[in-house]
This record gives sequence, C-alpha cells and structure tokens, in this order.
Amino acid sequence: QQTAAAPTGSPTLAVIPGDGIGPEVTAEALKVLEVASPVTFESTRYDLGAERYLATGEVLPDSVLAEVRGHDAILLGAVGGKPNDPNLPPGILERGLLLRLRFELDHYVNLRPSRLFPGSASPLAEPGEIDFVVVREGTEGPYTGNGGALRVGTPAEIATEVSVNTAYGVERVIRDAFARAEKRPRKKLTLVHKTNVLVNAGSLWWRLFESVGAEHPDVTCDYMHIDAAMIFMATDPARFDVIVTDNLFGDIVTDLAAAVTGGIGLAASGNVNPDRTAPSMFEPVHGSAPDIAGQQKADPTAAILSGALLLDHLGHADAAAAIEAAVLADLAERAPGTTRRTSEVGDAIAARL
Amino acid sequence: QQTAAAPTGSPTLAVIPGDGIGPEVTAEALKVLEVASPVTFESTRYDLGAERYLATGEVLPDSVLAEVRGHDAILLGAVGGKPNDPNLPPGILERGLLLRLRFELDHYVNLRPSRLFPGSASPLAEPGEIDFVVVREGTEGPYTGNGGALRVGTPAEIATEVSVNTAYGVERVIRDAFARAEKRPRKKLTLVHKTNVLVNAGSLWWRLFESVGAEHPDVTCDYMHIDAAMIFMATDPARFDVIVTDNLFGDIVTDLAAAVTGGIGLAASGNVNPDRTAPSMFEPVHGSAPDIAGQQKADPTAAILSGALLLDHLGHADAAAAIEAAVLADLAERAPGTTRRTSEVGDAIAARL
Ligand SMILES: CC(C)[C@H](C(=O)O)[C@@H](O)C(=O)O
Ligand SMILES: CC(C)[C@H](C(=O)O)[C@@H](O)C(=O)O
Repeated sequence: QQTAAAPTGSPTLAVIPGDGIGPEVTAEALKVLEVASPVTFESTRYDLGAERYLATGEVLPDSVLAEVRGHDAILLGAVGGKPNDPNLPPGILERGLLLRLRFELDHYVNLRPSRLFPGSASPLAEPGEIDFVVVREGTEGPYTGNGGALRVGTPAEIATEVSVNTAYGVERVIRDAFARAEKRPRKKLTLVHKTNVLVNAGSLWWRLFESVGAEHPDVTCDYMHIDAAMIFMATDPARFDVIVTDNLFGDIVTDLAAAVTGGIGLAASGNVNPDRTAPSMFEPVHGSAPDIAGQQKADPTAAILSGALLLDHLGHADAAAAIEAAVLADLAERAPGTTRRTSEVGDAIAARL
Repeated sequence: QQTAAAPTGSPTLAVIPGDGIGPEVTAEALKVLEVASPVTFESTRYDLGAERYLATGEVLPDSVLAEVRGHDAILLGAVGGKPNDPNLPPGILERGLLLRLRFELDHYVNLRPSRLFPGSASPLAEPGEIDFVVVREGTEGPYTGNGGALRVGTPAEIATEVSVNTAYGVERVIRDAFARAEKRPRKKLTLVHKTNVLVNAGSLWWRLFESVGAEHPDVTCDYMHIDAAMIFMATDPARFDVIVTDNLFGDIVTDLAAAVTGGIGLAASGNVNPDRTAPSMFEPVHGSAPDIAGQQKADPTAAILSGALLLDHLGHADAAAAIEAAVLADLAERAPGTTRRTSEVGDAIAARL
C-alpha cells in the first residue's frame, strides 16, 4: 500500500504497525509526519506481528526482511499478542521480529530520550528539569541469544545466558554517546554497569569509557552501578544528561526513566544504525496493550515522538523540533481527567504544525 | 573480642563491622540486639574489609572463613573503601568477601523486605500500604563468576558473563518464596524475570514457578518482566507482596524498592541459608559511605532492622517483632529536618524496648 503521490526520489519508509494498539498509534504518527515533514515519504506497510504469525506461522520471512532493508527508515507500532495465548510461544515475536530487526540492521544505538514534559506532574522535579537520553547498546550483551540448556525438564537441568561484549561493539556505542553528550549544553555522560560483579564485561566497558573519554575532555564523565542508578533515577532523575549502558541494563533503566517522567505512554525510541549501512527503526517504548486495542484509547504521543526522532535521523532536525514543540504544547494543555480518542490526540498535534 | 558474660551454650555471632560507616551502624545494631534478645550472644569480631586488605593484602583468609562458619549467625556492617582508591582493585571486596561469604555459606535466599514506614512520606501510598519482600536468589545467575575475556586490551577483545541457572538452585529459592507467601495475609507471589529474551534461564524459572505453584493453590501467582517491574515498582509498589527473582534482577529491583519506600537508609537484608547447613548473614543494603564515615552521621536503622531479621532467623520472632515495633515508633516520631547522631538513634530505639 503506497502513497501514490510521492515524487520519485522521495525517501522510503517501511511501516510495521504491528498488533494491538500498534496500528492505531502508527496511524497518528504517520498523520503528524505527513504534516510536519518537508519531504513526502513513499511508504510501504508490512503486516508483521502476532496476527500474521498466528495465521501463517511466519514471523519475519527473509524476503520481507530484504524488502524492509531497502528502505530509508522504519516506523514500528508495537508487536505482541494476547498474554498467555497458547498458540504464541513466549518471546517468539520479540526475538524473531523486534530483536531480529535490531540485530540484522545493526541498530547498535538504541536511543531513548526522557523528558519531564509540561503537564506531567512529578514530585521529583519541575517540567524542563528532567531532560536526558539513554544510549542503550542494541546488538550485544545478554540479548545475543547465546547460552543454552542441558537436561531440560529434569532435576539436573542447567540453563545459561551469555552476555557477549566486544571491544568493537562497546567502543562504537560509547563513541556515539560521547558525541551526543558533546552536543548538549550540560555535556555529561554517565556509564551505568555493574563492574564490581560483572568483571569481564565491566572492565571492557570501563576501559573503553576511559579511553574514549580521554578524547573528549569537555565531557564530564560519571560512573554508576546499575543498582545505584535505580536509586538516583527514582529520586533525582534531573541529574542525568546522557547515559550509556549495555543492552539489558538499558532495557531496565529506560522503563524506569519513562515511569518517573511522563510515563510509558510518552516514551519514544530509535533503534539507530549511525553508520547508515541499514535503515534505522523508530518505535514507541510501550507494548501492544491488546486489552485496549481497537478502542481508540491508546495515547499516540510516544509513536508521534518516535516519528520526530525518525525525521531528525533523516536530517530534518527542524521538522523534528516542530513535532516536539507541537507535542509539548498539546501536553501543556491536556486537561487533567479528560480523555481524548487516539485520533483526536493526533489531530490536535497535527493541527499545531 | 568476646562478651565475657555469655553463658555457655549461648548462640554465637560473628560480627564483621567492615569499613566506612559499617562499624558505627553495627555498634547500634548490637546495642539494640543486646536489649531485645532473650538470649545473650557470644560474639566475635572479625576485622575484614578495605582496611585489612590495604594493610595486609588479605580479603577473606580460609582460616577466617572457617572460623566464621562455626558461628550461629553473622552480622555485617558494610564493606568498601574510598571510591577509586588505586590500591583497591574494583570489586575485590565485593567478590572476595561479600559474595564469597554468600556463595561459601550457601545463602541462596537473599531476603529483602520493603515497607513504607510511618514518617516516610511517599506520593505513591500511605504508610502501611507498602509491605512486600523480595526473595532474591543468592548463589547463581550472573554472579557466579563464570565468563572470561580474550585478547584483552586489543580491538579484538571479547568479554563474556555467564548467567548460570540450575533446576537445583532455582527450585529451592522458588520453594522458599512460596512458603513465605503462604504465611502472609495476601498470599501473592510475583516472579520477575525476562523470559522473552533470556529464554533458557527464563524457561527454567517459569516452569519451576508453575510446577511449585501447583503445589500451592492458595498462593496467587503473577509474572512480570524486569522492565515492567520497574514501572510497577515506581508507580504502584503497594501491589507487591512477595517477589521472587534471580540474583541480578534482585539486586536491581531491591535498590529501587528501597528508594520508593523509606530510602536505602532503612533497607535491611538477610543472606539466608534456609537449610541451616551454615550460618546466615544479616546486613543493611546500603554501602560503606566512606564520605561520612566516623562522623556519627549514618542512619543505623537498616543495620538495626537487619538485627531483627537475624533474631527472627534464630527463632526469636517475638524479639524481632519488638525491634521492628521500636523502629516503627521511632520513625513515626522522627521530626522532619532534625538529625540525630548515629548513636542517638540506637539509644532511642533501644530505650523503647
Ligand atoms: C520486547 C523486548 C524484547 C524489548 C527489549 O527487551 O528490548 C522491549 O522491552 C524494549 O525495551 O524495546
Ligand atoms: C556490593 C554488591 C556485590 C552487592 C550485590 O550486587 O549483590 C550489593 O549491591 C548488594 O545488593 O548486596
């Protein structure tokens, strides 16, 4: 399904609306993108997710992956079926689709900004005081699918998970994080890890953080164990500027970050391939929320903000900033206690552009 | 240094005050223990920690471990030297002392209760509404020291960390958690893991949770990914009753739990060997805080509550409850903005007994 009007040479967008509330929030993200973007996208929709798997047994056919790879960027809604669906092996979509895309397209920078937006009440800070971004490594750590199990189902079962960390993989994400920190007013970068227990991986992360840091004397460096980071995130998130961390710690710390700022309904993310050897993918952090699917109850703000990250990645920083400003204005005027339909939120934000 | 007056046959206590604020808070815990306990402990002090390491190069000599093992229980303050002390290899005390004790003494249940005490303001709940306990596995997971590194210091370096999970180790901690849930009014147990990504370990934890759960039909079971648990812990901690989780997730979730309840200054913990094949060890969750050491500024409440867990473990449930009640009363009357010396807090709590 292509927008026929796109001029030749326009950037191409692979759209994966996914399951549950995914299609609803994606529609609003596209609505806003269309108004904000200085270029017209040629977009192609790919039906991937729980529904397709349940109907066909396919998660991400190689041919579809090859097609998706041919685009300039990917916009994803959310994937995931009903909890405990016996026909849906746990994790099959997460690993077969989401993580496979991240790994195959070398999305080594998983970018997750957190801001306390106006209108979000917080006991921890005033709006504007919380503004940080987590640079989560996206292609290594305990997410590599290494590990295995022996004597499964017996009392002698042993199951392992291997966190894989390479100098290649760690250095590039640390370099990206320093570059981002350098462009921000506070120029502060915090490494989050657990170097006192995970000594092999911790030592690698720490040494590369120090050596790359030596090339960036203008960036203030800081280190925090993941457990201490929990405390600071819960009590003083305003202290953070840029955080760099591994895949699993990043997963954990960004959900907490979302919770202490505007909530998971506002958290956008980019799965970025900074070398541009493959398209980057943008998606809200939230899941498919099958319980409220199709009811126009979902907040599309995170998807819309993911669209802004997409525009920024493609070089349209002004348009991205315009979307953010429109979202900010909308959030500031959201009357507490009132609810709008998913499409109404999209309309309201689009109308401000 | 032994309390000469202890009658023969009295329970023996190995006391490891440790570094920084460790000795100060331990002194108060012992002060309160002495008043509350129906039995007189014969206690022996072991000087272990950063100071001993820096003076002698020793972390935990085998002979000391053997002596400690001969006691009925262990009370630990906190260990850890000044941050970035070049003479103190990172993690050496944590792994060589704290974790070695947990592993050698088979402390497979790392017990971490969280309560919102009176006097602790929280936007999330009223005091009394938050009352849960985390049963953190203590002898497996990514804490086993498995893993290694290749080509260290070169661009081709690879470092791994292996999370080891056995049916033996997982089943026993799950059984312990179910037994604890069964004794509580709400009888609810939540498994926290990341089964959608860590599929080998996740599947083992999940299957044992289900099969042991089938033997406890009166316990309500619940599952949450670690990232989702962050959100619930930050926004609605009152929903939890008992949580069971692996060693690393437990480390992370309990620091957040402390932050959203009374803060890390109140968090007590027990490293419990439920089979009593070796002494259990009780310690505050907080660290050695070298910056405020020796100034009588530390809050000894977490150490005092760890003493209550110790008494409870040794069968003195009434005395443990009395300490908790005294702490509660003290907390309720702490005037906001005033500070007391470490010993004054201990005195005040002891005086209530
Ligand atoms: C769905 C899951 C595999 C994924 C992750 O763990 O990365 C999600 O939690 C996220 O943060 O994007
Ligand atoms: C000091 C460290 C090894 C320890 C852990 O990670 O278990 C601490 O954080 C804790 O929670 O007791």
